[in-house]
Amino acid sequence: MNAQYTIGLDYGTNSVRALIVNVANGAEVAAAVWGYPHGTQGVILSRDPNLARQHPADYLKGAEISIQQALAAAKKTVKGFKAGQVIGIGVDTTGSTPLPVDANGQPLAFEKRFANHPAAMAWLWKDHTGIAEAAEITALAQKIRPQYLAKCGGTYSSEWFFSKILKCLRAAPAVFDAAYTWVECSDYIPAMLTGTEHPDRLIAGVCAAGHKGMWSAKWGGYPDAEFLSKLHPKLGKLRSRLPTRIHSIDRAVGGLSPAWSRKTGLPAGIPVVVGAFDAHLGAVGAGVSPGTLVKIIGTSTCDIAVWPSRKPLADVPGVCGIVDGSVLPGYFGLEAGQSAVGDIFNWWVHYIQPRGERMSHRALDAEAMKLRPGESGLLALDWNNGNRTILVDQRLTGLLVGQTLYTTPAEVYRALIEATAFGALTIINRYEEYGVKISAVVNCGGIAEKSPLVMQIYADVTGRPMKISRSAQTCALGSAIAAAVVAGAHKDFAAAQQRMTGLKATVYKPNPKAHAVYKQLYALYQQLHDAFGTKQWNGNLYGVMKKLIEIRSRVRN
Amino acid sequence: MNAQYTIGLDYGTNSVRALIVNVANGAEVAAAVWGYPHGTQGVILSRDPNLARQHPADYLKGAEISIQQALAAAKKTVKGFKAGQVIGIGVDTTGSTPLPVDANGQPLAFEKRFANHPAAMAWLWKDHTGIAEAAEITALAQKIRPQYLAKCGGTYSSEWFFSKILKCLRAAPAVFDAAYTWVECSDYIPAMLTGTEHPDRLIAGVCAAGHKGMWSAKWGGYPDAEFLSKLHPKLGKLRSRLPTRIHSIDRAVGGLSPAWSRKTGLPAGIPVVVGAFDAHLGAVGAGVSPGTLVKIIGTSTCDIAVWPSRKPLADVPGVCGIVDGSVLPGYFGLEAGQSAVGDIFNWWVHYIQPRGERMSHRALDAEAMKLRPGESGLLALDWNNGNRTILVDQRLTGLLVGQTLYTTPAEVYRALIEATAFGALTIINRYEEYGVKISAVVNCGGIAEKSPLVMQIYADVTGRPMKISRSAQTCALGSAIAAAVVAGAHKDFAAAQQRMTGLKATVYKPNPKAHAVYKQLYALYQQLHDAFGTKQWNGNLYGVMKKLIEIRSRVRN
Repeated sequence: MNAQYTIGLDYGTNSVRALIVNVANGAEVAAAVWGYPHGTQGVILSRDPNLARQHPADYLKGAEISIQQALAAAKKTVKGFKAGQVIGIGVDTTGSTPLPVDANGQPLAFEKRFANHPAAMAWLWKDHTGIAEAAEITALAQKIRPQYLAKCGGTYSSEWFFSKILKCLRAAPAVFDAAYTWVECSDYIPAMLTGTEHPDRLIAGVCAAGHKGMWSAKWGGYPDAEFLSKLHPKLGKLRSRLPTRIHSIDRAVGGLSPAWSRKTGLPAGIPVVVGAFDAHLGAVGAGVSPGTLVKIIGTSTCDIAVWPSRKPLADVPGVCGIVDGSVLPGYFGLEAGQSAVGDIFNWWVHYIQPRGERMSHRALDAEAMKLRPGESGLLALDWNNGNRTILVDQRLTGLLVGQTLYTTPAEVYRALIEATAFGALTIINRYEEYGVKISAVVNCGGIAEKSPLVMQIYADVTGRPMKISRSAQTCALGSAIAAAVVAGAHKDFAAAQQRMTGLKATVYKPNPKAHAVYKQLYALYQQLHDAFGTKQWNGNLYGVMKKLIEIRSRVRN
Repeated sequence: MNAQYTIGLDYGTNSVRALIVNVANGAEVAAAVWGYPHGTQGVILSRDPNLARQHPADYLKGAEISIQQALAAAKKTVKGFKAGQVIGIGVDTTGSTPLPVDANGQPLAFEKRFANHPAAMAWLWKDHTGIAEAAEITALAQKIRPQYLAKCGGTYSSEWFFSKILKCLRAAPAVFDAAYTWVECSDYIPAMLTGTEHPDRLIAGVCAAGHKGMWSAKWGGYPDAEFLSKLHPKLGKLRSRLPTRIHSIDRAVGGLSPAWSRKTGLPAGIPVVVGAFDAHLGAVGAGVSPGTLVKIIGTSTCDIAVWPSRKPLADVPGVCGIVDGSVLPGYFGLEAGQSAVGDIFNWWVHYIQPRGERMSHRALDAEAMKLRPGESGLLALDWNNGNRTILVDQRLTGLLVGQTLYTTPAEVYRALIEATAFGALTIINRYEEYGVKISAVVNCGGIAEKSPLVMQIYADVTGRPMKISRSAQTCALGSAIAAAVVAGAHKDFAAAQQRMTGLKATVYKPNPKAHAVYKQLYALYQQLHDAFGTKQWNGNLYGVMKKLIEIRSRVRN
């Protein structure tokens, strides 16, 4: 019998990836990556540092080229491989990345008059032009619809759906008026591949709607028209034109259209799954299940957990999102994260550049590896880009304490890594405080693969083994898994994950001695965290420097 | 009439300097510097990083060579110059730098059996081997003699006289037992030059005794024997062998001895002034007077002020020393200081080395100069080496807050400079809170001369003009001024300073706009200062990062 494959299409910030996966065992037989040609590495920028857009033309071209190239590559690596063996496609994208579309569901940016208008493009996840609008939405919801905020950590973000749409309404009213409705990138791509873009036919994912659009079956979908009208009457009217069919990733939005079959060489009609966000499908690809936290570690992190929908679950304060079915069908998806992790290390290496070119990540890793916990006397907060989970506050910054006249670059580097580990522990603790027991942690992403230093520190700080996902492309793999389930190759997600995901042999085990020192340092981290990050805290920090010196002396002697 | 000259002999950490000065106008006609040959750049070190000693043999050789070379240089620069025109010698040294001597006042290190014994050498100011002893002395004084501490900021330091002697008693009892008594380096040098080393003849300076030896006329000299005996019975017995004749710098300890006249070519019998510490005579050389604060800025700072002895003056909590006659006769000398200033900048440039070799002090200065106050969003504490004045606490460390993912090396560098400026302002404020009005600030030392950036920030932060001493060698100049007064060339110190000191033409004036921003930043600095530095503080730091971001946004737009 011929092997069967699915394709995971992973739309990132700078490029799109097509991954071809054997549904029987998860083997990643071929892949292709295509960089978006528009803007700077695929991102349209402006003088306003908050602006970040993508051109939807890149989405079309990207699917075509990456699928073609991946198929060609598979023909080289798998003897006798045929495009006809591909039985389904899954899609993940960045988000919230909404784009305005016309009455036929076509992106406004495809119209000549809007071809170069940034407001008519896709508003990339990291676009922060809607900061004021986000504050406005949060304030209004706090006042009249607190339930909307309870599921997204208490604060509506400038990165999210309605902040961007409201900003467009105010800053580019002509674009807003020309748009029939708005769709998330993760919904647009599956619709595009299946020819179901028309608003009457569009099926949207619960992942984007639930996590970024305050959508919930509990209150009948998106925020009610009265609420939206108070933000702007036109936003109230938009509500009736927003997607109404919202689903988990256990169904197809349709079959691959004949047009796309011709473009790619794939069989027409194969199912294209409901889209979801990259981190969420990444969690699927890393084997997320009740009790297993998946940490997707990159420039920032996403910390995904699931919880059976049938079991009661309290709101977890400060956790960005709790949405039924957003990760796996039948489970609440819980999304937490740190606003910067790799980005903080990159700041030290590339912005500060200690000792110039001689100090690469690798050189710092090697030096920092020789240091013992507590030996530097340093302690840092991991807030250089704000705090996404628990405090949900962008107006926070980095902090480093404990410097002497002899503090070295590697000591600071290690302190920054430790700070992100303390941040990670704070998220795990928050999950557990609210009943979401975490019995295993699986890490994925470049840092998890490449830095034993970071992984060992995470193990030592959290006191838990750090496992590493076998796949280096968990997002695309997760999409391919969803496709395998929807295409019927596996009876459910658990069965598909059982066959198609795995862990690397290396597990970073906590060193009890190191963990004991980190426990003391974490108590100090918590003091700083609460003193600088919360209004409620009241106290004195007189002991912090003294205690750091005491720990340092004890470790050094 | 032939011009008259005096010599200022300035014993530093690594070298000794002889400066020949025209008493009529302060012209520095010739100088010579001689590096001590013992140890590492003149400092004897060991595996214990707290240990730092000097060999007294270097003191003898140093006076001989530096004076000879300075005289030779003067002959080249001043037509017809003759050694006979030198009418007196003043001496300043580091301190507290005590050395054990025998019954004839000769250093124990001159005996063959002790020639290489570090405990028999001079215990250099920065020797910190007596940390435990300092804590013991402080604790005992707090209990039974609080008055001893009131004049030295509330805490007895490991850098000071009795900490070192007690440490020697415990760690090297053979040396302690062999010593008849102990003298400060600043007392030994004048005695050596005049042949008055014998304890019966020795005249000691009130500067060292008062600031570092808890000596006061109020309680009959050094701490009483009962107090010292409680530390160790042998220390109690030592008291009767300590110097009893303690004087200001307005008198000679004797005339230059015939032996030293032969060695140097100077006239025998010319007065050699009572010795004092470098920073104190540096203040004299920079023109200190009531209302004028002299800041000697180097790796650390010394901030010297004076106050008329006849006017009442409260104890100033946290100020290291208040001693009658320690700087100028007839005035209280007040000594404050910051534990690290230039050292903090050096840490950033040489330990962290941002961008490697490309970022010298000069390159960072140039980039930091372009930044506006508040623009970086950063705030630092200047405690990388502890806090000497006000908190008097070595168990403090550096702190930096406000980092983003885009913080640059020059921004951090500027924040560190600003932190030292905030520390400087805190000292000025403390002086003024206790009635010591500061109406002018004169800066001296390499940083004051070379960094317009630092001086402008100091002016902008304090809201006061920063003046710069004309002389680059204020310590040696101060010694030469004392010699001029004692030799009768001027009727008093005021007259001598009037003629022999001066300011550079450049005055750094505060920019009112910059000062307004710094006022806001200083309020945040004070919050951090009190939160981390005092037990009394109670509160919340939630506003600190927010306010820094707010100031940053305002300045950038």
